[in-house]
Amino acid sequence: MAYQPPLHDMQFVISEWLSSPIEWSVIPAFKEVDEALSIQILEEAGRFAVDKLVPLNALGDRQGCHLNGGQVTTPSGFAEAYKAYVNGGWPALACDPAWGGQGLPQVLDAALHEMLVSANHGWAMYPGIAHGAYECLRAHASEALKETYLSKVVSGEWLATMCITEPQAGSDVGLIRTRAEPLGEGVYQLEGSKIFISGGEHDLTDNIVHLVLARLPDAPAGSRGLSLFLVPKQLDDAPNGVHCESLEHKMGIKGSATCALRFEGAQGSLIGEPHRGLAAMFVMMNSARLHVGLQGLGHVESAYQQALAYASERRQMRAPNRSEDTAEVADLLVQHPAIRRVLLELRACSEGMRALGYWGAHLLELADHAADSTERARAYQLASLLTPVIKAFFTEQGFQQASAALQVLGGYGYFTDFSIEQTLRDSRIAMIYEGTNEIQANDLLLRKVIGDRGEALGMLLGLYRQEAERCLMTRSCESYGRDLTQACMQVEQVTADLMASHDQEWPYRAALDYLRLHGWLGLAFAWARTARLAAPKQKETFYKTKSETARFVYDYLLINVRQAVEAVKAGQAPLPPI
Amino acid sequence: MAYQPPLHDMQFVISEWLSSPIEWSVIPAFKEVDEALSIQILEEAGRFAVDKLVPLNALGDRQGCHLNGGQVTTPSGFAEAYKAYVNGGWPALACDPAWGGQGLPQVLDAALHEMLVSANHGWAMYPGIAHGAYECLRAHASEALKETYLSKVVSGEWLATMCITEPQAGSDVGLIRTRAEPLGEGVYQLEGSKIFISGGEHDLTDNIVHLVLARLPDAPAGSRGLSLFLVPKQLDDAPNGVHCESLEHKMGIKGSATCALRFEGAQGSLIGEPHRGLAAMFVMMNSARLHVGLQGLGHVESAYQQALAYASERRQMRAPNRSEDTAEVADLLVQHPAIRRVLLELRACSEGMRALGYWGAHLLELADHAADSTERARAYQLASLLTPVIKAFFTEQGFQQASAALQVLGGYGYFTDFSIEQTLRDSRIAMIYEGTNEIQANDLLLRKVIGDRGEALGMLLGLYRQEAERCLMTRSCESYGRDLTQACMQVEQVTADLMASHDQEWPYRAALDYLRLHGWLGLAFAWARTARLAAPKQKETFYKTKSETARFVYDYLLINVRQAVEAVKAGQAPLPPI
Repeated sequence: MAYQPPLHDMQFVISEWLSSPIEWSVIPAFKEVDEALSIQILEEAGRFAVDKLVPLNALGDRQGCHLNGGQVTTPSGFAEAYKAYVNGGWPALACDPAWGGQGLPQVLDAALHEMLVSANHGWAMYPGIAHGAYECLRAHASEALKETYLSKVVSGEWLATMCITEPQAGSDVGLIRTRAEPLGEGVYQLEGSKIFISGGEHDLTDNIVHLVLARLPDAPAGSRGLSLFLVPKQLDDAPNGVHCESLEHKMGIKGSATCALRFEGAQGSLIGEPHRGLAAMFVMMNSARLHVGLQGLGHVESAYQQALAYASERRQMRAPNRSEDTAEVADLLVQHPAIRRVLLELRACSEGMRALGYWGAHLLELADHAADSTERARAYQLASLLTPVIKAFFTEQGFQQASAALQVLGGYGYFTDFSIEQTLRDSRIAMIYEGTNEIQANDLLLRKVIGDRGEALGMLLGLYRQEAERCLMTRSCESYGRDLTQACMQVEQVTADLMASHDQEWPYRAALDYLRLHGWLGLAFAWARTARLAAPKQKETFYKTKSETARFVYDYLLINVRQAVEAVKAGQAPLPPI
Repeated sequence: MAYQPPLHDMQFVISEWLSSPIEWSVIPAFKEVDEALSIQILEEAGRFAVDKLVPLNALGDRQGCHLNGGQVTTPSGFAEAYKAYVNGGWPALACDPAWGGQGLPQVLDAALHEMLVSANHGWAMYPGIAHGAYECLRAHASEALKETYLSKVVSGEWLATMCITEPQAGSDVGLIRTRAEPLGEGVYQLEGSKIFISGGEHDLTDNIVHLVLARLPDAPAGSRGLSLFLVPKQLDDAPNGVHCESLEHKMGIKGSATCALRFEGAQGSLIGEPHRGLAAMFVMMNSARLHVGLQGLGHVESAYQQALAYASERRQMRAPNRSEDTAEVADLLVQHPAIRRVLLELRACSEGMRALGYWGAHLLELADHAADSTERARAYQLASLLTPVIKAFFTEQGFQQASAALQVLGGYGYFTDFSIEQTLRDSRIAMIYEGTNEIQANDLLLRKVIGDRGEALGMLLGLYRQEAERCLMTRSCESYGRDLTQACMQVEQVTADLMASHDQEWPYRAALDYLRLHGWLGLAFAWARTARLAAPKQKETFYKTKSETARFVYDYLLINVRQAVEAVKAGQAPLPPI
């Protein structure tokens, strides 16, 4: 696999696409982050991904992880690569300087994680999860806990996990049974079993900081009876009662250790208030889901590059329109219309999702750091609305586009000699973990739209419309302005229908289509804005190509918005029992 | 994996769905095949699949095939299962009695192969390919060759291969380079390399009959210069010059040996006329592609059963409408609307595709055996039109629905402890081999529709309309009649647009959407017919469920026809270069 970090496009999103209406400089902390620094960081991150992670990608898939005497060995080179990652200061990139962080923008961290996943999803799981734990600890842990753990998590010296799922409690965290007994003096003893724990045990760091959802003795049933605990693998340099019982054998991300953990006499500390564990985790949920969405982006980008490289070299059959001066018997795949269409869709999704995904990261930043509290609240509301879309739509595209790219390689795509089949296998998990895409869809429609009475949605569509109006005033972008306005109207109408309906099952039947609708609408917005920014710079190939891709999006992909609207409407029909 | 052969539904398709307008009894050879015999055969075939193949499915995936000293070892138990298959007389099921066949209907063979694939796709590859070779030999081989090889292929004593692909010649067979030198007396010496050869070498049979596309010395360039040769692995009990150079490592169907073969001084015989190799292979192409389509059906059925079994036992969260008398904290997944919708789509696709797929098999039979020559020609034309739809649409659904089923299992679906992830991996190859789905799409639109000036399409839509009219006259099915008629009109209109267009690239850009359109239209037809047949029998659960599923199809899936029409129209926009 030859992966080239899409640095030019990343920088375009950061410096141009995000520059308005969301001003980079509104965040006081980033006054000194100029374009030159941002470029330098992205280049270094790209070099790390290419030099250290790409070579371990296929190897990690082949070797997988191994459990021996309770200890997990990761694939050869994983630990060394992690050491280099820590030495490079990457875990601290977007963390608070108060705890040793570099205090750089989240959007740079988003770009970093996109590249890590494109290069090696299995490896990227280890640091990927730690960031959520960092946010959770920073927001809810006591000062004493922060003192002991936070700077080590920021530096990357210790990695972390989220221990949520149990055999009977997957999507339904209310069914969690792990118990926590208070031993006094703020110490708790945990007993129970957790499964699907990514990085639950490994050889990358000496200690692992487990964040564990469990029940106190007096806890009410259901999800309101969950408390969050910090349970380290090593406590005061001695082994704590956390045992890795087994490693899961999976379809993909085999380099990532997915563990079943048994907590037996494990000592831990409460994070936040008793019975408020879910609330404590909530603070990291947007960010963790955004990260999984970025994995989908990483897969689409990687898939695009793999398909493009193959299609640019492989000759099969004559294209209906040949270049006239060729003496070749067969034409390059890129010259065949059907293949070109696939490649354009891959490119359109990758670049459009990059803009949307980084916007999501930037909104989370604004929610935290914007100077103005109204602006913070507004950003939080928008981020909360967009996050399930980014998580579910991006990961679905990650899988679907990886499959489309595999198809470009024909029979070779099915063989392990090429890496696209691994991309396809790796990508599939992202539709499931960190809240299945169905959970995201319900979160979007039931909670973030209907539950919010359309307030955040109104803001989002307002931004889309603002962009549409700018397009209407930009030569060569007028049709995008009209089309985007119309798409917004369709979405508004079907949303109003859903909110007015007395059929309480309809939203549940239609939620996934409703989410897809927002995915495609978001892409249309991203590309309208891109086209408008590119319009005055058509002499540069980069921007000319952007304009061509935008044209493709509106010609070929915009229909997906209306089709998803129709699918939502189809969902009005009741379903028979199975 | 617990697979239950869908015998009731198979028998419904064979005895009821196919009974009109295509009469079972129009084929003189089948006068004695009554329903009782058909049921008995399906039951036995199902027992074979469940008892012999299901237990080897995961094992075959784990063990894979191994190459040692030029010889391939298949996974443990594969050879024994094949012996039982031969002893059961299964290879001969639908073969000509003149060569030892049982002379039973192709539709029973289709049901057999569906079950083999549902149970164990990797294993099913070996006998799956032999049937095409049988048809090719029967139609084009000399009497002498038939004498030596045909009855052994019919009995299954020897297996066969199709050796087409070479490193530089995938979809483009015109680029084939393997050479055949005449040695005199009808003997040819072959030199060259073939790749992607399923069952190219294995330990199931003593001999393997390779059918090889190669060039005679005086052959013109391109696909019109290809001749077909029979090259046995063992010639007069001595090894011939056919060497297995390597085994491919693949994403799935790991139990199937995918070989790179080197022909070096290999002796063979010409099949059919010189330079007419493609024409000789043509006779088996419809049947081979239909078989691959049936693999897609096998995957959807298997995926449906796996998802249904899990969703019927797993409780997570409360459904929006609970059964009032439950004391359970959480509801079964089948009670959640989003999951029910997925299961209904799985069921609708599996059962609808079964009707269409068996119809395709029956049409091929009629093309061969119908008493009347006009009927034979008509059946051949219809089968040729439907075959690329069945191949590509079914295999796409096989993959997409396997992914949908995997999602129902959540995190468990991603683990190798459950078999759905294997189903997903296995299913992916069927979109590629035997002509990629893009090749099928071009075949359908460019050759079978535009090239045929819409004649066969007119016939097909005529049958659909006939069904629609019957529905209009059947209480409770009127709306299906109206909707199906309207869908036919939409398809007719967009086809006329395509045929009238002067943009020669449009069909190439739109072919895959055009094929999908026919897939969904075919399903709508299948379910209209099913609903009409079920209407008078609503007291039986089987038929009541059929009616409910038909309602679901028209409520939820029919929109896919119009959406595919819109996608075809979107394809009018030109594509920029990459």
